[in-house]
Amino acid sequence: MIDYKKNALIAHKKLKGKISTVLKANIDSSEILSTFYSPGVGAVSEYLTKNPNETKNYTWTNNLVAVISDGSAVLGLGDIGPKASLPVMEGKCMLFKHFANIDAIPIVLDVHNPKDIISTIEAIAPSFGAINLEDIAAPQCFEIEETLKKKLNIPIMHDDQHGTAIVVLAGLINACKVVGKDLNKTKIVLVGSGAAGVAIAKLLVNYSSEIDMILVDSIGIVSDSRVGLNNIKKSLLKITNKKNISGDLEDAVNDADIFIGVSKPNLLTIPLIKTMKKDPIIFALANPDPEILPADAITAGAKVVATGRSDFPNQINNVLAFPGIFRGALDNNITKITTTHKLKAAQAIANLVSKPTHDQIIPSVFDERLVPTISKLIV
Amino acid sequence: MIDYKKNALIAHKKLKGKISTVLKANIDSSEILSTFYSPGVGAVSEYLTKNPNETKNYTWTNNLVAVISDGSAVLGLGDIGPKASLPVMEGKCMLFKHFANIDAIPIVLDVHNPKDIISTIEAIAPSFGAINLEDIAAPQCFEIEETLKKKLNIPIMHDDQHGTAIVVLAGLINACKVVGKDLNKTKIVLVGSGAAGVAIAKLLVNYSSEIDMILVDSIGIVSDSRVGLNNIKKSLLKITNKKNISGDLEDAVNDADIFIGVSKPNLLTIPLIKTMKKDPIIFALANPDPEILPADAITAGAKVVATGRSDFPNQINNVLAFPGIFRGALDNNITKITTTHKLKAAQAIANLVSKPTHDQIIPSVFDERLVPTISKLIV
Repeated sequence: MIDYKKNALIAHKKLKGKISTVLKANIDSSEILSTFYSPGVGAVSEYLTKNPNETKNYTWTNNLVAVISDGSAVLGLGDIGPKASLPVMEGKCMLFKHFANIDAIPIVLDVHNPKDIISTIEAIAPSFGAINLEDIAAPQCFEIEETLKKKLNIPIMHDDQHGTAIVVLAGLINACKVVGKDLNKTKIVLVGSGAAGVAIAKLLVNYSSEIDMILVDSIGIVSDSRVGLNNIKKSLLKITNKKNISGDLEDAVNDADIFIGVSKPNLLTIPLIKTMKKDPIIFALANPDPEILPADAITAGAKVVATGRSDFPNQINNVLAFPGIFRGALDNNITKITTTHKLKAAQAIANLVSKPTHDQIIPSVFDERLVPTISKLIV
Repeated sequence: MIDYKKNALIAHKKLKGKISTVLKANIDSSEILSTFYSPGVGAVSEYLTKNPNETKNYTWTNNLVAVISDGSAVLGLGDIGPKASLPVMEGKCMLFKHFANIDAIPIVLDVHNPKDIISTIEAIAPSFGAINLEDIAAPQCFEIEETLKKKLNIPIMHDDQHGTAIVVLAGLINACKVVGKDLNKTKIVLVGSGAAGVAIAKLLVNYSSEIDMILVDSIGIVSDSRVGLNNIKKSLLKITNKKNISGDLEDAVNDADIFIGVSKPNLLTIPLIKTMKKDPIIFALANPDPEILPADAITAGAKVVATGRSDFPNQINNVLAFPGIFRGALDNNITKITTTHKLKAAQAIANLVSKPTHDQIIPSVFDERLVPTISKLIV
């Protein structure tokens, strides 16, 4: 087994970071210097003073995404703050460049409440072509993204929410093909009400209002009978739990077709899976340790199992979605990434697997058709 | 004559900006992906959670400068705001890369008072290894830089102030050699009390408290008899105008050895220069049109003339100083750029011209000795 931890520490220290800047022109003569800097650049600034909407045509913002985090919900590590989160954000910038040829720069924030995070991002927004919010804790992430989408006129996406939701939906579309079920008619148990859970719930209901979905949080089923539900859960109650059942995880899982976990390790058991409908689909997405190991889920009768891990089949990986989404938003001058965009992207990712099987419901992250296919749908 | 304006507009639009990102490693396999992103990167974040001061050894911040502006005092254009100022900041980032191999990224701010500018920069500071403040209007620039230097533990320099002051001092040291005067014993008239003027006054007095300097602003000589002087000018009064004279530009220039203008075009005349001491030195640095054209200054008897322009001899250009200053600060883990650093840099720039002449008092911006010579003094 490869020791990723050791390799990562050695490689990061050796390279001293993972990204760098490069110039589009060599400024080795006074004339070229005068074209790209003073006095020439003054003419460009003067032109943009009169035509601010053309800024992207004259600056690197046309191809620039800021990956912004306050480091409050990083991988499985939790609230580690800005400095410790920087390697993750720099890594995300690598993915943007490698998969979509997008220039991306990491910006980590030393502010810790939604009001300050929002005002900081608003203040620096003219520097960028688009913003990828990353690893910001729920429930603050919802308010931050919604407010910024209203205030700013550039594409903004909290990838932990929507990237995950898009790839989960893509995976479910194909998993249902494998087991011969109609996704619209399924009963889904969704465990976890963080950033990913909320976004998955919303996107699935937007995909089909027929889906019978039950949301489970750390207390139990989110239902009318619960007191003290926060606003997010109250709003999700309107679109989930149609039969208004209450109870715990066991009550929720009983007779379900699909289990989606974005919660914590070892939450799901073999006996619980055995109470599900025939040919259950298990998306055990807790990272790095899933809600149940794939081998156990299969022992219990699961027909398709997906995780967040690269060492098992069917890795639900955001990198299948966000490079194409942002490539399309930048190229097509889109200012808002909408639910329609997300649904189209999910369907497109699913369609790239011509014959889904139990261990291949989604394409490889290295599938070169992904970015061109998705980006042209973001219009 | 080359049409820099036209060339600049064409070149900027063609390249769509001037900088781009590049990866330090190719992530074309699952294993490398797992080293630089999840799960491997988690080990780096975990390590930095315990050792935050090592962040620069594992991220690109060890070689990263943010060029930050609110676009309030850009070139000769004034307060043009963040978007229109972006090409200038991106150009500055090119200079950082070309001359000092420093990764630099432009951050433009859509906030417009010192309090908000300071809190925004504080919030994003963990993202960078150092900060170059650029084109922020006086007097706000003073409060912003001073406050940030106190609050943050990374190098911060407002280049319009200190870069200019360093190169002016370097030029004066050699100009005095050309005319055979002792800079310490000179009478200097400094016209302009913006960012550059204030920093030049402070650095010259730090160079030698013997210098007899008179500061002139748009109203006249800054003296005890003036009412309503702002705090900056009051503090400069303590170090200038030792004989406490009052009056206008004419009174100040009379009998001066050196004229330094960071003010406005055509302010200085041939008759005025004729009232100066023998072999006057004229630094007419208003951009793009100087306080007096070099030919006119020479007609009036000036022995050395410097301007801000590349098409005349002796261009006082910040690029002589800031690449080496920041290269040194990053390499030597300096957290504050001090007056001593600035004085040493100025002397080093002057020393690079072995035999100064009236039309060569400072090195070429392309002199490859500049960055290594200056950077090793920033310790």
